[in-house]
Amino acid sequence: MVDAEGGIVAMRRVATSGDGPEAVVAQIGALVAAVRRPGAAAIGIGVPGAIDAAAGLVLNIPALPGWGGFPLVEQVGRSTGLSALIENDAKAAALGEFRAGAGRGVQNVAYVTIGTGIGGGMIVDGRLLRGAGGLAGEVGHTHVTDSPEICACGRTGCWQAVASGTALGRDARNALGTRPDSEIARVAGDAPVTAVHVAAAGRLGDPLARELLRRFAQLIGMGLANVQHCYSPELIVLGGGVSMFLDLLQADIEAALRAGLLPGFRPARIVPAALGDDSGIVGAAMLAREALPNA
Amino acid sequence: MVDAEGGIVAMRRVATSGDGPEAVVAQIGALVAAVRRPGAAAIGIGVPGAIDAAAGLVLNIPALPGWGGFPLVEQVGRSTGLSALIENDAKAAALGEFRAGAGRGVQNVAYVTIGTGIGGGMIVDGRLLRGAGGLAGEVGHTHVTDSPEICACGRTGCWQAVASGTALGRDARNALGTRPDSEIARVAGDAPVTAVHVAAAGRLGDPLARELLRRFAQLIGMGLANVQHCYSPELIVLGGGVSMFLDLLQADIEAALRAGLLPGFRPARIVPAALGDDSGIVGAAMLAREALPNA
Repeated sequence: MVDAEGGIVAMRRVATSGDGPEAVVAQIGALVAAVRRPGAAAIGIGVPGAIDAAAGLVLNIPALPGWGGFPLVEQVGRSTGLSALIENDAKAAALGEFRAGAGRGVQNVAYVTIGTGIGGGMIVDGRLLRGAGGLAGEVGHTHVTDSPEICACGRTGCWQAVASGTALGRDARNALGTRPDSEIARVAGDAPVTAVHVAAAGRLGDPLARELLRRFAQLIGMGLANVQHCYSPELIVLGGGVSMFLDLLQADIEAALRAGLLPGFRPARIVPAALGDDSGIVGAAMLAREALPNA
Repeated sequence: MVDAEGGIVAMRRVATSGDGPEAVVAQIGALVAAVRRPGAAAIGIGVPGAIDAAAGLVLNIPALPGWGGFPLVEQVGRSTGLSALIENDAKAAALGEFRAGAGRGVQNVAYVTIGTGIGGGMIVDGRLLRGAGGLAGEVGHTHVTDSPEICACGRTGCWQAVASGTALGRDARNALGTRPDSEIARVAGDAPVTAVHVAAAGRLGDPLARELLRRFAQLIGMGLANVQHCYSPELIVLGGGVSMFLDLLQADIEAALRAGLLPGFRPARIVPAALGDDSGIVGAAMLAREALPNA
């Protein structure tokens, strides 16, 4: 439940059911009942896939089978009695940062979330880009390298395959094969090594962690130069798990961004998401509010 | 001189003077005097570089020194007595195709010009993207490969460095070193081999030319998949010299585009620019007309 200024008034979280769209509609109904306050007017939903916003349809959710063509807006409206709206989840997060977060007052904002994967939502000339299927801004799967790492999508060359948190964890596990004495292994203990352990070891000054983080930052910066060439933002807002240790990466990201830009481009400022994990919640709510006939 | 429907009523061409902005303003004055008809209302100008459209300033033209900060709109207005407007040249061309060419009636159109270099202008959600400095859509200099070819911008990895007409000509000259018997050499005669000769030899069925064209088409398609991930167009309009032999490339471009797309993306249709070299002229004029207070 979000107020007019983008403040979160009440919140519940559940793991999305894998039992198909009807089960998720039931989950949404229960969540709405739990957080609803008097005056609630509309529901905004971020969808991790392709949508037809005007028709209120989910077209495709890569991580969840059975959603093709599902009329989510109609079903949620029927179950809750409120008008509903859907938006791609990264676009909703971008809108949240633009309206109520780090991008307030800036006309060109690139929101890039780097965690398990890489996603994006772009504000250009003061407007959220949607494109066909609401899929504009899918920068994580742009081809940026000839490197052979397999992406979650099954292809090679994707920015996400080399510059996501998943990629950093994988690179660390590979490197530990020949350098098992690194602090990264000690920090992880019995757990499988992930990006979080690399960051923790980097804070302790571990040389291998520092090398991995430097290379990781360079790959992020290279991709952000692509983002800047594509959308020409003044500001890049970074969300996702990696933004939690942006301080360790920022100088190297900025150097790679500068090196990657054509003359004529001024490097965009790079800042972490102000709303953290909640950018998408706030953005979806603001979109739903703005779409109301009398808002 | 362009009419309200985007038809060209009169045209003159001159090579842009390299003697600085004042000399070019004088050229523009002479051209306007030559084509002007009664009822002429405004002047639209495509600028091959970064601009501040609102302030009417040229910020940077990579190919021409001395333009930084030049008040082109004010100077042309003073010299001609007409109101003027500036836009990045590829954006103007995109707008021309969107309003009066191959993209009429389509809400999401990616215009990509492939010739000496690669440029772009993007229509997303029915609007021309500008971004800071009017530089959104600079897809030719996105990093797409680890290949060592040096781009015109001095860097490596740019899409333009491997998939422009310039790149095709260079690759052909290199290949002829070991395969001098190709028809490409015969077609070129005493002239330095360029993309045009490769296309001509390809039409004759020359095996080397066919190989080069196939690889070239694959690199174009790979980059167009990036374009689709970034902007999610339904339609891709190809301009520039390479569009003159699109028929030789289209099947391989389309196959590479399909292979490069995430599930959920439907491959955009690919068509040549309907206005050819004139897309930018028509687009700049339409922009100027639309900006008039009483248009």
